[in-house]
Amino acid sequence: MGKVYIEDIAKHAGEQVTLSGWVYKKTGKGKLQFIMLRDGTGIIQAVVFAGNVSEETFEACQHLTQESSLEVTGTVTEDARAKGGYELQVSDVNIVDIAEEYPISPKEHGIEFLMDHRHLWLRSSKQHAVLKIRHEIIKAARQYFDDRGFTLVDAPIFTPSACEGTTNLFETNYFDTKAYLTQSGQLYMEAAAMAFGKVYCFGPTFRAEKSKTRRHLTEFWMIEPEVAFCDLNQDMELAEGMLEFIVGKVLENRMQELEVLERDVSKLENIKAPFPRITYDEAARILKDADADFVFGDDFGGADETIIAQNFDKPVMITHYPANIKAFYMKRDPERADRALCVDVLAPEGYGEIIGGGQREDDYETLLARLKEHDLPQEAFEWYLDVRRYGSVPHAGFGLGIERTVAWICGRPHVRETIPFPRTMYRLTP
Amino acid sequence: MGKVYIEDIAKHAGEQVTLSGWVYKKTGKGKLQFIMLRDGTGIIQAVVFAGNVSEETFEACQHLTQESSLEVTGTVTEDARAKGGYELQVSDVNIVDIAEEYPISPKEHGIEFLMDHRHLWLRSSKQHAVLKIRHEIIKAARQYFDDRGFTLVDAPIFTPSACEGTTNLFETNYFDTKAYLTQSGQLYMEAAAMAFGKVYCFGPTFRAEKSKTRRHLTEFWMIEPEVAFCDLNQDMELAEGMLEFIVGKVLENRMQELEVLERDVSKLENIKAPFPRITYDEAARILKDADADFVFGDDFGGADETIIAQNFDKPVMITHYPANIKAFYMKRDPERADRALCVDVLAPEGYGEIIGGGQREDDYETLLARLKEHDLPQEAFEWYLDVRRYGSVPHAGFGLGIERTVAWICGRPHVRETIPFPRTMYRLTP
Repeated sequence: MGKVYIEDIAKHAGEQVTLSGWVYKKTGKGKLQFIMLRDGTGIIQAVVFAGNVSEETFEACQHLTQESSLEVTGTVTEDARAKGGYELQVSDVNIVDIAEEYPISPKEHGIEFLMDHRHLWLRSSKQHAVLKIRHEIIKAARQYFDDRGFTLVDAPIFTPSACEGTTNLFETNYFDTKAYLTQSGQLYMEAAAMAFGKVYCFGPTFRAEKSKTRRHLTEFWMIEPEVAFCDLNQDMELAEGMLEFIVGKVLENRMQELEVLERDVSKLENIKAPFPRITYDEAARILKDADADFVFGDDFGGADETIIAQNFDKPVMITHYPANIKAFYMKRDPERADRALCVDVLAPEGYGEIIGGGQREDDYETLLARLKEHDLPQEAFEWYLDVRRYGSVPHAGFGLGIERTVAWICGRPHVRETIPFPRTMYRLTP
Repeated sequence: MGKVYIEDIAKHAGEQVTLSGWVYKKTGKGKLQFIMLRDGTGIIQAVVFAGNVSEETFEACQHLTQESSLEVTGTVTEDARAKGGYELQVSDVNIVDIAEEYPISPKEHGIEFLMDHRHLWLRSSKQHAVLKIRHEIIKAARQYFDDRGFTLVDAPIFTPSACEGTTNLFETNYFDTKAYLTQSGQLYMEAAAMAFGKVYCFGPTFRAEKSKTRRHLTEFWMIEPEVAFCDLNQDMELAEGMLEFIVGKVLENRMQELEVLERDVSKLENIKAPFPRITYDEAARILKDADADFVFGDDFGGADETIIAQNFDKPVMITHYPANIKAFYMKRDPERADRALCVDVLAPEGYGEIIGGGQREDDYETLLARLKEHDLPQEAFEWYLDVRRYGSVPHAGFGLGIERTVAWICGRPHVRETIPFPRTMYRLTP
């Protein structure tokens, strides 16, 4: 008999099985004890009746503490009143380890306490649900691109030079020189798109920003697709298709977890392409009409994003930002040279920017001029200029931030709960 | 009409299509020009006959250089002689960009030259094939665990302290303190296995080793599963099942790429579980019989691994190493306390160790004693000790090195070709 997990318990109705797990909760009365057993895949109530087990076993069960580990043998019975629809009528119990007094109790704990115990907090039902949904989102994002013929090309983490200043970069000694931890794989993906047509990378990226907001981590994951022979409009179609696909997969496979999180599912069911597309100018007008503290020409701040997003019940795609507040590699709009052919996507409900992307400058001379305007060292970008020397083509791509996407879909206000072991300006442990 | 890629060309036989790509090779004679067009998904011969296109177009095609980019419209015709079985009879050509003289030619280049041009070298057919197979391996590894109910739990890259000395760690300033780049997610996976039952992480890991061998990179990717209620034997079954699955998926989906690499496929078709299992003592005997320069009690070196692997036509699983040459967290064999319940897996054909793993020490007191024996600071490991305080269970796992697995399956002797942008002691660019 192979090992049985609680998530598969329905397949074993009426059978005798052995489950392995931990005590989630325990109550008892007289000759009955009820153990809520969790095994990481689900929770089931194990009913220990004194008449069905040895005296020693019944006695031992009375001393089980929260999070003690055990193996429980019994018969799976249907019970409409039970959560999940099944119970276990216990015939034998093998206690593996009696846990010390567990630090996380149902009472309220401060966030620092919970973060200090992140390695244990993961066992709690809401954190468990968030990370199951994170897995689903990551799997769906990969599947979306795999199904469309994209090639996964892992971008390097160690990079030799800073693209846009070293202020926000983590630096490390690299034998006899210095290396910087990547902020984005994009430049590498541009080169790879010329080799594979359609590529993506998916890995951790790093920003040493001194940000204490609920939307910032120093270590976060991004998926970054890049497509050769692609313009801004096609890029936006790819992005909205991906978001619809991801949300659809979560709704299809993780409804139970969304319920644990008490997420308003109707808001997610509404996420169907096409998404609203507005220009920077239109977004600025929304802020003006709302009397927001915003200066035309600046980038949008977190509060601005929330105001803009409130006007839409789907992700909103904002295009044509002023070129001078965007990166050097962005292609300019041929019809309005001070604007970039870029797109930022804001999640609905105030979860902030989840995607940044656009069409890249593909003309050698123009790109070279931009490098000089930005005081960037040409030598460090010779390989990147090669992409324009040897068969340059229009190309575009974007980056999706995983943690903010998880925060939005799970309805969690702070990104620190959306990654297993969060790293912020003030937190490097556990 | 959606965009057509060469990999789907068979679906468009007889139709007129427009393909976008780059000139891989070009030949011509009189009124005929033959353009080998690559688009990242495949290569097709585009036949330009002077009678079918305008005079200007025919003339322009004569000036196409290697890697120039273009859009080609024409009719897809079956041709048994053509590679891939199809040709394009061209009716129109739109040249996007004429490439400068391409630095990589069919002549032999030195490895340093190719590595300096890695961003372009990726366009070459063998490198392209290696990375397509890499993608397949990564996808298969994830699928194997996803299909078996594992939860992806990303381990942190920034870690607060060095598990086993800082010699081989990359260090970075982390605001007011120091952080180290992870060498393995294992310790975090042990904690996560108690929350999810079965978990894996998959990300880059880092070693600042001054190794110049063909098997070492400073930045490499690992997949690391960990399972609660699991012993060494079950761990080995999981590992051999995974390797069989991965090799099977490559054979199923990437035969064309294996052909490009001239890989002896029969060697891969033989990779079926169960794999041979030998102890450290038996492996040492093999080395003694081969008169190898090996001292009993030491770890195996690269040359030793090759000799051992030569005795098997499948991956060989070596167990029960002396505990004192293995990490502090390894569980000891209860029947032989100086041996660890560990397993290393050597790839066949001399590609070296691809897996390291085993059962973890699950007893609190024993683990604490080991920390002290290894002079490790208890405070930094309190969270790890918590895994033994609160419902400890037998658990096991392993790590698979992706680049060595790619090297083995692709038959490439050096790992530098198995990752898109390799990082070694001497290489941080492009």
